[in-house]
Amino acid sequence: MALAEFDLIRRYFAAQTPQHPFNRLGIGDDCALIDVPADSELVVSIDTMVENVHFFADVDPEALGHKLLAVNLSDLAAMGAEPFAVMLALTLPRVDEAWLAAFARGFLSLAKQYRVDLIGGDTTAGPLTLTAQVMGIVPKGKAMKRSAARVGDLIYVSGPLGGAGLGLKIKQGAYACDNAVVAIDSLERPRPRVELGLAIRDIAHACIDISDGLAADLGHILTSSQVGACLDWDGLPLPHAVRQYVRQTGDWQMPITTGDDYELCFTVPPGVMLKIPVGCQCIGAIEAEPGLRIRREGQLFKLETRGFEHFA
Amino acid sequence: MALAEFDLIRRYFAAQTPQHPFNRLGIGDDCALIDVPADSELVVSIDTMVENVHFFADVDPEALGHKLLAVNLSDLAAMGAEPFAVMLALTLPRVDEAWLAAFARGFLSLAKQYRVDLIGGDTTAGPLTLTAQVMGIVPKGKAMKRSAARVGDLIYVSGPLGGAGLGLKIKQGAYACDNAVVAIDSLERPRPRVELGLAIRDIAHACIDISDGLAADLGHILTSSQVGACLDWDGLPLPHAVRQYVRQTGDWQMPITTGDDYELCFTVPPGVMLKIPVGCQCIGAIEAEPGLRIRREGQLFKLETRGFEHFA
Repeated sequence: MALAEFDLIRRYFAAQTPQHPFNRLGIGDDCALIDVPADSELVVSIDTMVENVHFFADVDPEALGHKLLAVNLSDLAAMGAEPFAVMLALTLPRVDEAWLAAFARGFLSLAKQYRVDLIGGDTTAGPLTLTAQVMGIVPKGKAMKRSAARVGDLIYVSGPLGGAGLGLKIKQGAYACDNAVVAIDSLERPRPRVELGLAIRDIAHACIDISDGLAADLGHILTSSQVGACLDWDGLPLPHAVRQYVRQTGDWQMPITTGDDYELCFTVPPGVMLKIPVGCQCIGAIEAEPGLRIRREGQLFKLETRGFEHFA
Repeated sequence: MALAEFDLIRRYFAAQTPQHPFNRLGIGDDCALIDVPADSELVVSIDTMVENVHFFADVDPEALGHKLLAVNLSDLAAMGAEPFAVMLALTLPRVDEAWLAAFARGFLSLAKQYRVDLIGGDTTAGPLTLTAQVMGIVPKGKAMKRSAARVGDLIYVSGPLGGAGLGLKIKQGAYACDNAVVAIDSLERPRPRVELGLAIRDIAHACIDISDGLAADLGHILTSSQVGACLDWDGLPLPHAVRQYVRQTGDWQMPITTGDDYELCFTVPPGVMLKIPVGCQCIGAIEAEPGLRIRREGQLFKLETRGFEHFA
């Protein structure tokens, strides 16, 4: 890639002057400078998306720009953090102005929505690989950690599960249904649950965002907290199309083993139910016995390591 | 890549528990948590290295791990910042345990040297692409910016130039000499000038690290500061092998147009000469007239945009 092409890429992003008061110096120097308030902890996360691994080559670049930032903001949401800045490392095989303009539009429009400044980055030539690193703040000691679940906690999810997994099956040609657009939108344009993370951080114990699937991500909470859990499958919030898929295929594990929904899964002590935001649903409880148990239509299933086994 | 392989990769890095008191929570949650001191600004930078673009496929993986962190620490050094944390986004085509062990050794040993904790990251399957994001602190208002050069400032470099450029020519088979090992070492194992950045931040105006070559990087200072400069080529600190190269080939521009030396270039007001650390050398002065002029053996050369033109 010639130098002029790098300049072109930078033009789509570098025009951003930091708006958030924490960001004292943005793009254009060796580093960016940030003033973190004294009563807050800085919260940071990094995520990479690779062509043909995390997205299809023909994906809408505007959706891709949105999703790259969304999955990173989702990590901040899971800690109860308020985002304010992002850094972007773009590796691009070629300069396609229309692609770049759409990618930047998707990325920057979500950034603006959450008052997140793009404060720095790196642009390199190579196979399409996109890395974003996000920064947020949380009042000291208030971050929700995976290790904070306690026996007797109730387990909640912030919204419907399996929509993105269904979208992936449709994109792969493995399934077809009437309202495919909605499912594909769940896959390609996840909404990070930033406001919800802020709303629950004073009442929730442990929290995680569902990127790998409910079973795997709740599993991280269980391992970190050295507890177990029982889930009520019949109480899971599932979109209509996902219920239809399960009915037609019998594949009831799909909504809890496919990822990319980016809802939050969190645990709360009993007695705070009235404080839990509308739309969140109780799906189970934390127990002392290790492992993940799932009740469905009167039967009990047990999750062993990474596969399901019929239990009884 | 199977899940077990990701676990393997993580094993080489995730064992690190944060040692630096700023790092309150490291690898293993949705985000890392940092406590930035109230009198400091946070300083952040991100850099990517791509196979066959930034390094050869047969590069020593230990040197590669070292260099990935070194080039990022070099950006912090250029602001006068003290590093304390790094995040690592690794995209790997396959799991090669020997390669990974060596890469981690190079990366983590430099990290330990500077008391930098690896506090988070992401591991993905795909074409070999390595991104690191570093964090440091600087007392509020003390960061050295590219825009701070003033007319009348003297221009200094922190050490010899052209060693890495010569190493690249040797690796490419375009040049041969007796002490090739030293030049290749300059290319593959740059030393970030962190201590020097801390030592000069109270006396220097503008500063930048030389990653793209002295002419290009000093050019960034000139553009940001809206000034020009005159360099004295005959006063440049050049390694013996680079002097020999210039004598043999006549290519005198090489030491100022090839990058990867990672020395610092900084400007200081007249009158602080006695405070400048040993080993730094004065190579020119900031002038009001825009552009970069170079005096060499009694002739004046002028740098226009990105190429050299003979001036007089």
